[in-house]
Amino acid sequence: MEVDVVFTPGEAAGRRLGGVAAVLIDVIRATTTITAAFGNGCRDVVPALTIEEAREVAGRYPAEQVILAGTRDGVKISGFQLGNSPLEYTRAVVEGKTIVLTSTNGTRALRALDTAAEVAICSFLNVSGVARWLAAKGGQVLVACAGLKDGFSLEDAVCAGMLIDRLKTSFKGDVALRDGGRAAEAIYRAFGADILAMLRGTDWGRRIEGMGLLEDLKFCSRVDVTLSVPRMIEGRISCP
Amino acid sequence: MEVDVVFTPGEAAGRRLGGVAAVLIDVIRATTTITAAFGNGCRDVVPALTIEEAREVAGRYPAEQVILAGTRDGVKISGFQLGNSPLEYTRAVVEGKTIVLTSTNGTRALRALDTAAEVAICSFLNVSGVARWLAAKGGQVLVACAGLKDGFSLEDAVCAGMLIDRLKTSFKGDVALRDGGRAAEAIYRAFGADILAMLRGTDWGRRIEGMGLLEDLKFCSRVDVTLSVPRMIEGRISCP
Repeated sequence: MEVDVVFTPGEAAGRRLGGVAAVLIDVIRATTTITAAFGNGCRDVVPALTIEEAREVAGRYPAEQVILAGTRDGVKISGFQLGNSPLEYTRAVVEGKTIVLTSTNGTRALRALDTAAEVAICSFLNVSGVARWLAAKGGQVLVACAGLKDGFSLEDAVCAGMLIDRLKTSFKGDVALRDGGRAAEAIYRAFGADILAMLRGTDWGRRIEGMGLLEDLKFCSRVDVTLSVPRMIEGRISCP
Repeated sequence: MEVDVVFTPGEAAGRRLGGVAAVLIDVIRATTTITAAFGNGCRDVVPALTIEEAREVAGRYPAEQVILAGTRDGVKISGFQLGNSPLEYTRAVVEGKTIVLTSTNGTRALRALDTAAEVAICSFLNVSGVARWLAAKGGQVLVACAGLKDGFSLEDAVCAGMLIDRLKTSFKGDVALRDGGRAAEAIYRAFGADILAMLRGTDWGRRIEGMGLLEDLKFCSRVDVTLSVPRMIEGRISCP
């Protein structure tokens, strides 16, 4: 199989992804939060690009079945029920619900991948699960990092490198890496020994901790707490 | 001083660069070729975005003073005098001349930096020279990799990391790195031990070698053959 990694959504947007297994990584915090929400029994997650679109989509559901969630620059959108902290997505809040989610980077990155048949949602929480899923599929893989404001983010690159590391264990054939994959692997080797310390040192991690959200970083740093792989198919994320 | 690295021109395009010392890296081959051309006495280099623009700019000069140069996907543009192989830019050809240059990635990346007061041209050939120039300036630094077709390229990231390594030697104060800079440094440590072997293994390097241009890669792999720092000011590159 062949694996490439792109570090910004802009790089994914130009690619034809038919036949490619795509993976989205937005460690702080969208893909961590989505993984956590499915762990607590949410029904599905619908990513929305804008605040207006999120309201419009949520309006199609009976009020008791839907949760409007999202952030801009890390802060909960005014009038929305949830922000983007995985700690808010408790079983009592999300079980059985459809969550309409919009975030500054994560949901935009998902849209950049919408020519892919299926997009797996990856965070440290389920990185080995995603590796197993990819190994079972084989073929071409594109790992897309959500990054930070259209730029590179270290934590997503480290997670991409850990995914490649796990994939090499799970897959019984050759894993060929293109430039982005080789770089991610090197970045993982340099920064992957202590995930929480790494998160606390990155540009966005420092900003999040500065907002008083160290507990969020601790949650995001947990590795392999689930094997489940939420997947976006035709604009809706579910966890079969 | 604070250093960030962007791995694609798209990431640089969104930034305000007033007061920032900018560096462009396009190892295979634009910044290597530009550095080589100044080593052989060219007068200046004018980057052009399109083939049409290159012809138009060249037309403003007396024919004996100007050279029309450029490539698309690594191949010399039909009717142009030079391609983008540094080996073509001999003293006999370029001395005293203005070179109007257009390449697929490199010149577009230069344009993305045109809000910077000054853009240094960096390749392995002059990496320590660029580090010394930056160390003398201090302040904020943005290192922009030209990348490959709007995506990541490993060789540019390795060169960016080597530049940071040299900068830490040259600068007598603290060099603070943002996410991109920390990643570049890790990538350099992983792949910087044998530059030619690295170039031969990257996506674009393999393509260039496949075109029969191994000698170009050898030229691009030479480290610190000059201390000169070509710089773009108001759309024109010169080497004061």
